[in-house]
Amino acid sequence: MAKTQPARGMRDFLPADVRRREYVIRIIKQVYERYGFEPLETPAVENIETLMGKYGEEGNQLIFKILKRGEHESTGQADLALRYDLTVPLARVVAEYRNDLPKFFKRYQIQPVWRADRPARGRFREFYQCDVDALGSPSMVVEAELCSAATSALEALGFTDFAIRLNHRAVLTGVLESSGIEPAKHTDALVALDKLDKIGREGVGKEFEARGIDSEAGARLLDFFEGLARVEQSVTKIGTELKADAPHEAANLVVLDRLTEFVGGHVAGTRGTDELRQILELSRTTRAGRRLKIDPSLARGLSYYTGAIMEISVADLPGSLGGGGRYDNLVGMFSGQNVPACGFSLGLERIIVVMTERGMFPDSLVSAPADVMVTIWNAESIADSLRLADELREQGLRADVYPEADKLGKQFKYAATRGIPTVAVLGDDERAQGNVSIKNLKSGVQTTVGRAEAAEHLLKNRATG
Amino acid sequence: MAKTQPARGMRDFLPADVRRREYVIRIIKQVYERYGFEPLETPAVENIETLMGKYGEEGNQLIFKILKRGEHESTGQADLALRYDLTVPLARVVAEYRNDLPKFFKRYQIQPVWRADRPARGRFREFYQCDVDALGSPSMVVEAELCSAATSALEALGFTDFAIRLNHRAVLTGVLESSGIEPAKHTDALVALDKLDKIGREGVGKEFEARGIDSEAGARLLDFFEGLARVEQSVTKIGTELKADAPHEAANLVVLDRLTEFVGGHVAGTRGTDELRQILELSRTTRAGRRLKIDPSLARGLSYYTGAIMEISVADLPGSLGGGGRYDNLVGMFSGQNVPACGFSLGLERIIVVMTERGMFPDSLVSAPADVMVTIWNAESIADSLRLADELREQGLRADVYPEADKLGKQFKYAATRGIPTVAVLGDDERAQGNVSIKNLKSGVQTTVGRAEAAEHLLKNRATG
Repeated sequence: MAKTQPARGMRDFLPADVRRREYVIRIIKQVYERYGFEPLETPAVENIETLMGKYGEEGNQLIFKILKRGEHESTGQADLALRYDLTVPLARVVAEYRNDLPKFFKRYQIQPVWRADRPARGRFREFYQCDVDALGSPSMVVEAELCSAATSALEALGFTDFAIRLNHRAVLTGVLESSGIEPAKHTDALVALDKLDKIGREGVGKEFEARGIDSEAGARLLDFFEGLARVEQSVTKIGTELKADAPHEAANLVVLDRLTEFVGGHVAGTRGTDELRQILELSRTTRAGRRLKIDPSLARGLSYYTGAIMEISVADLPGSLGGGGRYDNLVGMFSGQNVPACGFSLGLERIIVVMTERGMFPDSLVSAPADVMVTIWNAESIADSLRLADELREQGLRADVYPEADKLGKQFKYAATRGIPTVAVLGDDERAQGNVSIKNLKSGVQTTVGRAEAAEHLLKNRATG
Repeated sequence: MAKTQPARGMRDFLPADVRRREYVIRIIKQVYERYGFEPLETPAVENIETLMGKYGEEGNQLIFKILKRGEHESTGQADLALRYDLTVPLARVVAEYRNDLPKFFKRYQIQPVWRADRPARGRFREFYQCDVDALGSPSMVVEAELCSAATSALEALGFTDFAIRLNHRAVLTGVLESSGIEPAKHTDALVALDKLDKIGREGVGKEFEARGIDSEAGARLLDFFEGLARVEQSVTKIGTELKADAPHEAANLVVLDRLTEFVGGHVAGTRGTDELRQILELSRTTRAGRRLKIDPSLARGLSYYTGAIMEISVADLPGSLGGGGRYDNLVGMFSGQNVPACGFSLGLERIIVVMTERGMFPDSLVSAPADVMVTIWNAESIADSLRLADELREQGLRADVYPEADKLGKQFKYAATRGIPTVAVLGDDERAQGNVSIKNLKSGVQTTVGRAEAAEHLLKNRATG
């Protein structure tokens, strides 16, 4: 007997799972369409050179590689690989079709990606990303629109308690350089700093030391972040009490002010604080306004970001529901000509986990496989039962047919266990008189109606639930 | 500069492509839901043992294999593979979840599959299948329902000129054995016979000889098929004239009669002709009735079929739009316990090719990326333009925003080239007076309305096109 589980880290989606996934995808698509984004799909399989080297050393390790075929199979070499994210294929597509695409290309893409990560709770080797990106403009209008679109999507799904943390790669660089940390140690410093919440100042100081970061520079960096956290905390408290509809506004202004001062004459850093200020300003009256929260410690892993970066946090939940940022140089890796670009990715799997735990799916989703099941009276009347089912379908009903001439009681019981609310019976009397008997399996009430009125009767039954 | 084309035999789908694909998929899903089928999704990646040996020797060659990872990568061995069809994963799922699934499991599945075939016109290495299967019953009600569902799906897409060719594996065996062809030569005989239309009796006779088929047996087989074709042709002509709504009915009865006689005492063959007769009888008044056409030469490639087999042909088109059949032993290869099963697969790619060539997509599909584009008057009013866009979206409009404070004429021109029908302008006067100016880019008419009425005005504009 063969193994029947799906491959490690992969999942089968039974009907109820698929319906939940489709519900979330449908809402996200609707929202993105309203913002003027258009759908794009790329192949699951890419040439291996397209992916290698785009996701850092760790990414290279996690890419699923496909063996060459035919006579080359025995070489053990790979020439193809599975899609690892939706951003690199987008950059390839923009480079390939740049003469056919509009000047400002706004696309959404909802497809699976594959990563050979060690599977864990909520981490799979096949998972969906819901990406939305705008290419062609360096304007902060793009960042503001993307934050508004992501906010609208999550609100449409029923999320109320999330924040979009906002930072900027150039500001991060500016802060690190102003602290005196040498460029080669920036990544190390950020990795350590990321743990400030968990291991405290002393712990981070030790990490700095272990990673060979100059102790004075490290202290300056920690001083700045600690001071920022103190100020932010008190201002947020006052701000929330004063303005419940814009809980982060006051703190954002104070934090931005401190950042601007600290970064000082650093040219790129100052451009960064300027851009953050613009995003806040443009978003004040959009859906995203009250969600945005400047977080100077947000770093985001991927190496291709060049400007603003965003990440969505939900209160009381570790991890994020999505994130994104500006990556102005990625298309240039394919076309030789840079195209400004910014995008946002929502994580479908995590959204579904949280929505399931919180009971956020509408009851109507747990739907029966059909509105009615047509039963089989005897072997002679099967064709007539099939015909009745077709008639009901033509009127818009979802009609199942029991496939065998079993005892009627057994057929009723089967419909009940499947959650189908009504059964239709074409007995000898019914057929002789051109009628159908319809039984509501919940109430037990059985009604005999003329065959031409059966659909109408059932549709009414369905509407009143 | 990197290569930017998709991998060989794979395709990128730009927005207009995706909309066409989604239109077809949506209609097929709606129809299958009406028949009581439920959605299933399986991973793109399967354990390699799940797929190997299920598709014959040629199939094994065409499976994309995935290299082991980490320290095992250098072995050049594969442990995973890409989904090759939707039937084998279904059989695995039914074996794995047999305690959770209903006694009669009716599922549809619309997902891509991958085959390392040599790419050709209309043949791709990544392509979608739209499968619908019913498991758990040996009753011919299943075959009748599947034929009706496939018919309804194609009719809902606008196809009018197709036939469902119907045959039976046991009847094929019976005919070959009754002709005296030894079992080991059955496949060879069918491959040669398949060319009767193209190369004529003499050509097929030569092929028989080349394949080592007994010449007398071959002659008996050819006599039978030639006689059948003659009779069928004349009966079809008369039948079509008499009964336009059931063009194949008369011929089906005559052909079935001849088959029954020829197969004679062959037990399985007689069961086969009985089942074909039942399918015709049950389908007489369903949507599929007038589509069914018994075709005793239909063989279908896949080895797992055990009963009725079907294939959909469109007049004047080579190849098929889909096909299927009964495969009662496949689940048993996974669970050790056979489960009766029958299914139908529609080929999405071919359906789209034919619909595109024939102009069968509705005009409304070639839709603009947005209903309205909000323009930017100057740098100071950008936030207000973003706010207006959000207001319009909240009323159900698809609103794009031009991302930069370019000259207004340039913005209008951009909207026009994108096919966006209207633009909204928030100039100094409009903002001072709480108005919005809306320009219809087709008629050139510009109207100024109160900001609160802008959405209503645009919705009316959209409705009247």
